[in-house]
Amino acid sequence: MSGCRGSRFSGSRFIMKNRILVVGSVAIDSVSTVCGKVEKALGGSAVYSSIAASLFSPVRLVGVAGTDFPEKYVRLLKNKKVDVSGLEIVPGKTFFWKGSYDKDFRNAVSHDTQLNVFETFNPKVSAGNANCEVLFLANIHPVIQLDVLGQMKNPLITACDTMNYWISREKKHLLRLLKKIDVLFVNEEEARQLSGQHNLIKAAKLIRAMGPEVLVIKKGDNGAMLFTGSGIFSMPAYPVVKVADPTGAGDTFAGGFMGFLASCGSGWRRTDSLKKAMAHGTVMSSFNVEKFSVSGTCGLKASDVRKRYAGYVGSLRIC
Amino acid sequence: MSGCRGSRFSGSRFIMKNRILVVGSVAIDSVSTVCGKVEKALGGSAVYSSIAASLFSPVRLVGVAGTDFPEKYVRLLKNKKVDVSGLEIVPGKTFFWKGSYDKDFRNAVSHDTQLNVFETFNPKVSAGNANCEVLFLANIHPVIQLDVLGQMKNPLITACDTMNYWISREKKHLLRLLKKIDVLFVNEEEARQLSGQHNLIKAAKLIRAMGPEVLVIKKGDNGAMLFTGSGIFSMPAYPVVKVADPTGAGDTFAGGFMGFLASCGSGWRRTDSLKKAMAHGTVMSSFNVEKFSVSGTCGLKASDVRKRYAGYVGSLRIC
Repeated sequence: MSGCRGSRFSGSRFIMKNRILVVGSVAIDSVSTVCGKVEKALGGSAVYSSIAASLFSPVRLVGVAGTDFPEKYVRLLKNKKVDVSGLEIVPGKTFFWKGSYDKDFRNAVSHDTQLNVFETFNPKVSAGNANCEVLFLANIHPVIQLDVLGQMKNPLITACDTMNYWISREKKHLLRLLKKIDVLFVNEEEARQLSGQHNLIKAAKLIRAMGPEVLVIKKGDNGAMLFTGSGIFSMPAYPVVKVADPTGAGDTFAGGFMGFLASCGSGWRRTDSLKKAMAHGTVMSSFNVEKFSVSGTCGLKASDVRKRYAGYVGSLRIC
Repeated sequence: MSGCRGSRFSGSRFIMKNRILVVGSVAIDSVSTVCGKVEKALGGSAVYSSIAASLFSPVRLVGVAGTDFPEKYVRLLKNKKVDVSGLEIVPGKTFFWKGSYDKDFRNAVSHDTQLNVFETFNPKVSAGNANCEVLFLANIHPVIQLDVLGQMKNPLITACDTMNYWISREKKHLLRLLKKIDVLFVNEEEARQLSGQHNLIKAAKLIRAMGPEVLVIKKGDNGAMLFTGSGIFSMPAYPVVKVADPTGAGDTFAGGFMGFLASCGSGWRRTDSLKKAMAHGTVMSSFNVEKFSVSGTCGLKASDVRKRYAGYVGSLRIC
């Protein structure tokens, strides 16, 4: 969980940590699985990503919530040192999702989706936030993602997530976005849908030609694959004995990945940095699925992450 | 691809390599996929496993074929230094399978299955073969597997594969077998079927309690998982750009795994030996799926395997 060499300290001289701006949804979720259920829990792509990233780098969240958004959730984010000055609280209700998973956690069934104040989300990036060195555009409308990207000053790393809905309905805008970003996160089916190729290696080649230098294909409990100019790096999932709730696993993966990568500074393109980012994303998402909502990650100490990371990396070492 | 330290040489003293006895099917396959097709090609679990294992350890094959079995296939096995003295040629036709795969290679459709001489396969293990140090019982009826196991003198390592058909129809005999073997290979669905547990980690715990000290769960293009008393070790698949034919991938994995493990001698239980065996199985099966029938593995040189193995192991290293 340590940053890349030289990213934070150079001799005795302190170098300012790279700040990561996370833009995405802030939600209230009611989720049930075979392990139990939660009502009106904290959720949303920006929330999951921010909490995971906060273990590695300073995080600023940009999002919108309604006046029903519990103050305790704001406090939770603040306790994680997430800067919430970019979280607008506007009249109306917070984005609400109610869903359940089947017993193998592969398929989510949505019982209720109320976009509420999220429907007219039109983020304005403050001058302070626009100076963040790293931008992570969690899953939202590609036009909003493009708009936020345009408001940034000169980010060192730009990354985004997306989903099947935008690929099928807003592909033109998504393709404009992809030309401008460094790192893209998609899952297997999204990679196939975006590229029109079933084989993930061929799909990755086509997607990287659309713009992103780095592509991460998330495969749930089958791990993730990293595609860069230097090659293909597959990583298995961390084995989780008891999955409680897979909600936010992908966002948490991306948050852990980007949070770590931000700590690598200008060395972020190195294969080593990217592989470590993959491993940190893997570890963070393994914590996430062990509990409902953000309970699996919001209470983590750096030492918890370090310990699991060391075990994971060790399990992959063959010598 | 080198054996474990001390397994082959001790100072200047040569130690006899451990021989691996492979018992299973010998078949003629006609296979079609989106990449093409082959007619009456060499196949069968014992064949795939033996060819893969032969890259690492001396192999002896026990199986049965009909008088239609082409002499060129016997020569191919002999060229791989596979001892075929245990391959019976009996009146009748060789086990024949005709099948095809859908475009993602996940589902095989059987168009024709003729057991032929394989239906009455009743292997007699010669005195020479009974002295082999390592036994791999490829997928056949568990009663035959038990019978062969009983004919062995004092094997150092015993391993077996099985399939859904035997788990549902011959579970009693299979459970008797599992009590006596060291290493079991199953795929994900078989693991769930055998244990009644969906979560693979819980499934593995239950299966290991049935007898096998070491369990390998094969997950196709999602890699494989190793379960031992020391922990859980997941490995991704080697990324294959163009899959031609997945037939025999699991047998080839097991063959590479067991062939390497045989080379580890009495150190086979070490986590390091087992992880290397996993990696060798992974690499061998990646070669297998790139071509039809055994074409992907039968022409391999040791240097081909060494090179891909080094690349695979390096891709997993995070430091």
